[in-house]
Amino acid sequence: MVGGGQLARMTQQAAVDLSIRLDVLAATDVDPAVVAGAHHRLGDPLDSDAVFGIGQTADVTTLDHELVSRDGLARLEAAGHVVAPSVKALRFAQDKAFARSEFRRLGFPVPNFAVDVDASSVAAFADEFGWPVVLKAATMGYDGRGVEIAPDMKTAAEVLEREGVWIVEEKLDLQIELAVLVARRRGGETAVYPVVETVQIDGICRELVMPGRVGQATRDAATQLALEVVEAVDATGIVAVELFLTEDDELLINELAMRPHNSGHATIEASETSQFHNHLRACLDWPLGSTRLITGGAALVNLLGSGSDDAALRNLPSALAVEGASIHLYAKEERPGRKIGHVTALGEDPEQALEIARRAVATLEGRP
Amino acid sequence: MVGGGQLARMTQQAAVDLSIRLDVLAATDVDPAVVAGAHHRLGDPLDSDAVFGIGQTADVTTLDHELVSRDGLARLEAAGHVVAPSVKALRFAQDKAFARSEFRRLGFPVPNFAVDVDASSVAAFADEFGWPVVLKAATMGYDGRGVEIAPDMKTAAEVLEREGVWIVEEKLDLQIELAVLVARRRGGETAVYPVVETVQIDGICRELVMPGRVGQATRDAATQLALEVVEAVDATGIVAVELFLTEDDELLINELAMRPHNSGHATIEASETSQFHNHLRACLDWPLGSTRLITGGAALVNLLGSGSDDAALRNLPSALAVEGASIHLYAKEERPGRKIGHVTALGEDPEQALEIARRAVATLEGRP
Repeated sequence: MVGGGQLARMTQQAAVDLSIRLDVLAATDVDPAVVAGAHHRLGDPLDSDAVFGIGQTADVTTLDHELVSRDGLARLEAAGHVVAPSVKALRFAQDKAFARSEFRRLGFPVPNFAVDVDASSVAAFADEFGWPVVLKAATMGYDGRGVEIAPDMKTAAEVLEREGVWIVEEKLDLQIELAVLVARRRGGETAVYPVVETVQIDGICRELVMPGRVGQATRDAATQLALEVVEAVDATGIVAVELFLTEDDELLINELAMRPHNSGHATIEASETSQFHNHLRACLDWPLGSTRLITGGAALVNLLGSGSDDAALRNLPSALAVEGASIHLYAKEERPGRKIGHVTALGEDPEQALEIARRAVATLEGRP
Repeated sequence: MVGGGQLARMTQQAAVDLSIRLDVLAATDVDPAVVAGAHHRLGDPLDSDAVFGIGQTADVTTLDHELVSRDGLARLEAAGHVVAPSVKALRFAQDKAFARSEFRRLGFPVPNFAVDVDASSVAAFADEFGWPVVLKAATMGYDGRGVEIAPDMKTAAEVLEREGVWIVEEKLDLQIELAVLVARRRGGETAVYPVVETVQIDGICRELVMPGRVGQATRDAATQLALEVVEAVDATGIVAVELFLTEDDELLINELAMRPHNSGHATIEASETSQFHNHLRACLDWPLGSTRLITGGAALVNLLGSGSDDAALRNLPSALAVEGASIHLYAKEERPGRKIGHVTALGEDPEQALEIARRAVATLEGRP
């Protein structure tokens, strides 16, 4: 697994169940997966040789995040090694300009957009779709970085001065954001999880409810769309298809992640097979596990770093007193706004489950 | 944790959730917990210095099994370190002669027995309670070793020639065997899991059903008895109280384990808080988690080693095709009859859950 973050950490926990040896390419020897006991090799995921090196000794190479060397993965494929997702599929998760254009070409619903924009094309776009507009870096964005909302031309011009290729998108009026997790084997077998509702604050996912609080028709449409997208891009492993539901009840593709994803963390407790188990099974081309919910539903709240060192660890015993809260800490240094853990709560009633998870997270974050 | 077996392995998985550093005293560097990524130190759990050494650097020292140096633990306690369970409590799990005698003295129900027996006292015991009798090694037994059923004096005499102190017990007519898991903090706070039904074959636990298929009155009585026993012995951490239910509906104490226990493995999937999480929480004197079942019930079948090397790993993909089976492999070398993994299945209907778990285990064991 290229990258040693929390996704690799939780994949390691699942790998232990199935006696799978997980080797991670980690940036440091205190990366979350390394601390959790995964075998590791130190290296930069953007370094081609490092990626090629770790993949050479593995049955299959997969990812903790998408900011990885395409060249390293391509060399592995050329040498006959299995990469999941394939380099071709991965481009849909790495390059927003490519993904938007391809999805439009394939007839999938996407927001109105223009790629590789400069000040004059953004001005033309805004003339057609109005201000504000959304500017997105075509590559290397995550957790809200590389996404800017520009209310006017002056702000837009400032953003465009930064390095890289930018795309411009209409600013949508959203009802809600949804995510659909699909596990897919190389041969095409898929298993799809119930639609998840995601709440973003400042570009970072803060809360999740599974199943999402939308009508059955919307859930069915989102599931169908996600399955078609995953088939079209020919991905292997877990794919998270992030969707917008507009005020006009239109479902649009936001973006894809090709690895276990934050929107699926509640599957650890709530599903017959967690996304981490199914990612391993899909990557190894083993039969996929049932994605059925064990309970009526689940809510999840992400834990963000506070200004204070080790606040979460200090507050852990108090947070454990919140009955029904399943706490996951990632052993990451606390930095304000950084995801350092999450709390899941189960329940038929999403409001009640959310309340439990929020209370535990507030305690961990040291908020009243 | 003294010992690096499968209990330490699953404790390590739970420790990752809570960002707890687990160090194990392992016999080899391929012990199940070491392979799973727990920090480790090599040493013999029966070696006083090894036990003292690993406990000196820990907030709390606990156990993967009870075949550990009491002297090493006593030295830790004398030096002011926390040991869970305490050396005093642990004697109830290490010394069957002491436990039987103490339980009788305290008024708890136990089978008829005599301790430190020789041929003549066994003959006298059999005159009173009849043949066959059960002979048990007072110490160092596990998984059926050190337990012999003697149909006559000749067999009994052969057993008694072996080293060690033996106790003799009446051979009971059992309806069923039960186990009750209790998590207990130093201050006395407890959390008790639903009563588990255990099926032993050749002295080894093969199958478990939670909750056990006995009436509510029996469940309540078993729970009450277990709580009283755990209180009386003043144990810390998870305690498994193994009980006999006789044909006459009498509940008798069989034995105690003072650590996560095979009878609690289904809590990983079936309970709000697994026994491994609650063991860590109890040992660290943190608030205990809810022991509520998430589903109606669960069944578990242990996977035993076959004659063939790596049969379970070879058969793993086929076994994963059994829908609803949660497979746990311990990364242990296969030896006939050795516990090398387990499979849990959830469901309202224990028969159906058992059928799923049995089918997956049969596939893993390479049976038709």
